Amino acid sequence: MLITPGKLLAGINSPDDIKKLDQAQLVQLCEDLRHFIIDNVSVYGGHFGASLGVVELTVALHYVLNTPYDQLVWDVGHQAYGHKILTGRRDQFHTNRLYKGLSGFPKRKESEYDTFGVGHSSTSISAALGMAAASQYLKIEDKQHVAVIGDGAMTGGMAFEGLNHAGVSDTNVLIILNDNCMAIDPNVGALKDYLTDITTSRTYNKLKDEVWNLLGKLSMFGKSAQEIVSKVENGIKGTLLSQSNLFESLNLRYFGPVDGHDVNHLVAVLNDLKNIKGPKILHCITTKGKGYAPAEKGNATTWHAPGTFDKITGEIHKKIYSVPQAPKYQDVFGHTIVELAKANDKIMGITPAMPSGSSLNIMMKEMPERAFDVGIAEQHAVTFSAGLATQGLIPFCNIYSTFMQRAYDQVIHDVCIQNLPVNFFLDRAGFSGADGPTHHGAYDLAYFRCLPNMIVAAPMNEAELRNLMFTAQLPRTEQAFSIRYPRGQGVMPNWRTPMEEIKIGTGRKIRAGEELAILTIGHIGNYAVEVCERLAAQHIEVAHYDMRFVKPLDEAMLHEIFSTYKKVLTVEDGCVQGGFGSAVLEFMADHHYHADVKRLGIPDGIVEHGEQYELHRESGFDPDGIEKAVIGMLEHA
Amino acid sequence: MLITPGKLLAGINSPDDIKKLDQAQLVQLCEDLRHFIIDNVSVYGGHFGASLGVVELTVALHYVLNTPYDQLVWDVGHQAYGHKILTGRRDQFHTNRLYKGLSGFPKRKESEYDTFGVGHSSTSISAALGMAAASQYLKIEDKQHVAVIGDGAMTGGMAFEGLNHAGVSDTNVLIILNDNCMAIDPNVGALKDYLTDITTSRTYNKLKDEVWNLLGKLSMFGKSAQEIVSKVENGIKGTLLSQSNLFESLNLRYFGPVDGHDVNHLVAVLNDLKNIKGPKILHCITTKGKGYAPAEKGNATTWHAPGTFDKITGEIHKKIYSVPQAPKYQDVFGHTIVELAKANDKIMGITPAMPSGSSLNIMMKEMPERAFDVGIAEQHAVTFSAGLATQGLIPFCNIYSTFMQRAYDQVIHDVCIQNLPVNFFLDRAGFSGADGPTHHGAYDLAYFRCLPNMIVAAPMNEAELRNLMFTAQLPRTEQAFSIRYPRGQGVMPNWRTPMEEIKIGTGRKIRAGEELAILTIGHIGNYAVEVCERLAAQHIEVAHYDMRFVKPLDEAMLHEIFSTYKKVLTVEDGCVQGGFGSAVLEFMADHHYHADVKRLGIPDGIVEHGEQYELHRESGFDPDGIEKAVIGMLEHA
Repeated sequence: MLITPGKLLAGINSPDDIKKLDQAQLVQLCEDLRHFIIDNVSVYGGHFGASLGVVELTVALHYVLNTPYDQLVWDVGHQAYGHKILTGRRDQFHTNRLYKGLSGFPKRKESEYDTFGVGHSSTSISAALGMAAASQYLKIEDKQHVAVIGDGAMTGGMAFEGLNHAGVSDTNVLIILNDNCMAIDPNVGALKDYLTDITTSRTYNKLKDEVWNLLGKLSMFGKSAQEIVSKVENGIKGTLLSQSNLFESLNLRYFGPVDGHDVNHLVAVLNDLKNIKGPKILHCITTKGKGYAPAEKGNATTWHAPGTFDKITGEIHKKIYSVPQAPKYQDVFGHTIVELAKANDKIMGITPAMPSGSSLNIMMKEMPERAFDVGIAEQHAVTFSAGLATQGLIPFCNIYSTFMQRAYDQVIHDVCIQNLPVNFFLDRAGFSGADGPTHHGAYDLAYFRCLPNMIVAAPMNEAELRNLMFTAQLPRTEQAFSIRYPRGQGVMPNWRTPMEEIKIGTGRKIRAGEELAILTIGHIGNYAVEVCERLAAQHIEVAHYDMRFVKPLDEAMLHEIFSTYKKVLTVEDGCVQGGFGSAVLEFMADHHYHADVKRLGIPDGIVEHGEQYELHRESGFDPDGIEKAVIGMLEHA
Repeated sequence: MLITPGKLLAGINSPDDIKKLDQAQLVQLCEDLRHFIIDNVSVYGGHFGASLGVVELTVALHYVLNTPYDQLVWDVGHQAYGHKILTGRRDQFHTNRLYKGLSGFPKRKESEYDTFGVGHSSTSISAALGMAAASQYLKIEDKQHVAVIGDGAMTGGMAFEGLNHAGVSDTNVLIILNDNCMAIDPNVGALKDYLTDITTSRTYNKLKDEVWNLLGKLSMFGKSAQEIVSKVENGIKGTLLSQSNLFESLNLRYFGPVDGHDVNHLVAVLNDLKNIKGPKILHCITTKGKGYAPAEKGNATTWHAPGTFDKITGEIHKKIYSVPQAPKYQDVFGHTIVELAKANDKIMGITPAMPSGSSLNIMMKEMPERAFDVGIAEQHAVTFSAGLATQGLIPFCNIYSTFMQRAYDQVIHDVCIQNLPVNFFLDRAGFSGADGPTHHGAYDLAYFRCLPNMIVAAPMNEAELRNLMFTAQLPRTEQAFSIRYPRGQGVMPNWRTPMEEIKIGTGRKIRAGEELAILTIGHIGNYAVEVCERLAAQHIEVAHYDMRFVKPLDEAMLHEIFSTYKKVLTVEDGCVQGGFGSAVLEFMADHHYHADVKRLGIPDGIVEHGEQYELHRESGFDPDGIEKAVIGMLEHA
């Protein structure tokens, strides 16, 4: 179903059409755009609050900038729905985040207006600076390079690395700090407090306002904005100390704070800034969910990506089930860590800005002194956990598989090489689903199993996750322990099972069989169960082993398998290069077995977004794919 | 040869002995310590400038703190020689960085005074904060937690992530900013300029001095330092704007700048700070190479790790060779990028703080507008390179293999998923040698080959490196291209060979043979050449293939190999889990070959420091090890 856009929006097929409007019409265009987003997301779901918060900024940017010639980089990209709708994708927007549909994030392949693919946080300054440095080298002087970055993303270390370089570059880069006090959860950390302080500090604002007013007055006399700013800045320096602002300390000209919901003021400010060369930052105050009362008044985290909802009442649709459902793995983690922590006072929880996503918020609420949200700061989260471990505490550091990529060095350098007993929980391992390739947890089995002093495990169901968690908190003086599980539901409606230790490096024989053995790791093993049953119905009995550990492998079990079977199929929800199947091949080679081994998993390429089962099917390891592979191997002599 | 310590130093077997000294003797102890470092490094080599720069700070810290109960974390660790010498390792210090000797970095295994293993930059704040948070939770109130971090390390994003968390924590952590304006090369970026500004800004300093004086005076009246600071701070707030300092913006109490070479003042300041709870930063100005005239006056980069030298004349020893030597791979890279860039104006060079280490300084000198040192900021370096690539430029981003771990997510998210043609040069791949496990480039083949849109190559010699570089700069619209090479010399004294394209994914047959084929990747292939010659002398002819690419593999060549040989030995200077050999196993399985494959490479564990050949020998892939493996396989039926 195509959502009908408002009249003004209906005429906008590219930013050129926005430029044809009278500036007075922009308020109405914002209104149309906001309604179109509300109408779409309420019906189709998706990210909500962030895009509503930047409606005015989006319209102003495309009105003032000459996109796509000018380069506009959206950090993370949750907020880019308006950008997509205004840049020729309005009529496809109902396919947002659906299999084969539009991506939920800016993506270079999708549009020339998407100058840089995003999804992870804090990349936009570096990318825009690279573009600006290229323009500088190529002597292109009229091109604008703009990064729009949230205050949450600004806490990621690479944003600071970008600022540190930008401040000494002579490039034409504008960083727009979209300050809404939120990551997905409320933003945390000293920077957030600082931003609130400068926004509310009257002295500073007053001076800044005077600057802006002066700028306005003087420009009527025809002086260039650059001249004026330079004069005004000297004036400020007489009054204040130089570098009185964090960003000015880093040699970025700081402008603002400005009201991010006043589109006409934004247009004026952006037009001025276009004429001020050099690296600069515009501090823009916005409200997540702006213009939709239930989101503005309600819980911003809930309205970050609420699912579908009734746009009139603001009631978020809940699925109603007639039978008990299995819980999300996330909630099993969240409740179980609290259960374990009550019995073991050494357990500490750590999340980098994903309290609600990881369900660590349950622990943060129940035992706030033992659960840390450290902000969008995966590197710090890992080394902070290592620091806790040196003092005898037991860190449970929960990081999405895809975001663990950002702390890879810290895992190697601060945990594995030092052989510290830190526990890692890799959430959203395997296909992330609708978020797509930037968020798939595709590589962790490969990138972790090559590390020394690292245990790599994945539970096949909720009870197994609980047992692995129980095992991870038992006294241990060394070795990192990583436990990965997918986004979403498990398989056990009655999941609050008693916990018991699992011997590290031991698998489980799920089913005996003849001729062929299926070896699985993690939740995807449930597909194999289904396949074995289907095959049994056809009187084909194959064996199934849930290996449970990729490292150390259950060598006794593998000796049994390779002594028994000449055909082995490995299945993993992870990249086939270097992953679990590859570990099995290494065992086989090292022990001089010769079997036919086929590996199923995420292929060597970019798998786009869609429902997890759609991506499993596309990658050939949904139940049909596994069944087909088994039959194929059995038919092969 | 044991270096004789000065009389005072000779009596220091642990920090307890320092505490027994009169404070008046500390200046002499510093003198002794400085001489001992000079005497040792001039004879045995090692890192030099950094440790000389913190002699006074080291003595003051161990005099004031109750180490090892108090937790002292040295960032990077180049500067920790004095710390090692004062904490019971004086008489082993001549084994520093030698095989089986002391590590050149702090290391938990080596001493209880080494609270956290280091080597990579910017980890200390996170680690110390983790320790401090543990003490807070455990209600240990008298413990100090101190991170000593250089201004270079402060540019790394994770340092900022740590500050952002520290500023809102209520932990007892002291961050000592050791400001010497240097990384290994001169420090760069806006932060450096800022630190210089606040150090030289009279207004700010004057106020700060007044605070210190007041503090001194008031404390004579018996008031607690905390009370006083609080009062004084209110006073400052009346005069200056609040948050007038970058660190204060992040809610860290800022003290300084102080002269880092005045040991008595440092003792006084550290004693005061012990009584001020909460997160705080002490800005300490030091000079790299302090107290050794040739280092102070000379090039600080040269004196970072000068090798051995004549301590009287300051002349650095140069090896004299009677025959022409092969160049370092680093210099081949440095000269060849300039050669290529002269012919191709799209090539741009990028290094994160390693201009001299990578030899990109040659390009920075010759074409400064096309070569960027972005500071200790690997994440930014990669995404900045991606930004350049979006504008049609050809980035040559040179990052040590071990430091590339820190930009893993950026390679995946900003380069591979977007399929951008960025070229990566992974320097110091394989064993780093004397720097040890924190610096070994052990994992890159495994962690890169599992990524889509990534070409993974390694040259066997200088000509091959040049050809790969030539190939990497040819027009290409997609795919990342990574080229790894080891630290140190190649094998071709006449290395300025004409360059030619190498077809991507093609290997080289080096030698024909019978029965068994050795497959190598990269420089380590030269060992195989030697082994084949040794074996030929014993009338054993084995084949040798330089595969050149781990990804894509030369499938035609592998079909030839597996059709011909039933015994295959793979050799790589990288981890055996998931690496090159594992890729060969995957090919074999996928194509239903059944050969005996043995993989040699870095074993699954921590290999310590030593000369590269010593570590190759220990790991079983020096020429003797390879020969032994071949003989073993040939004997095995």
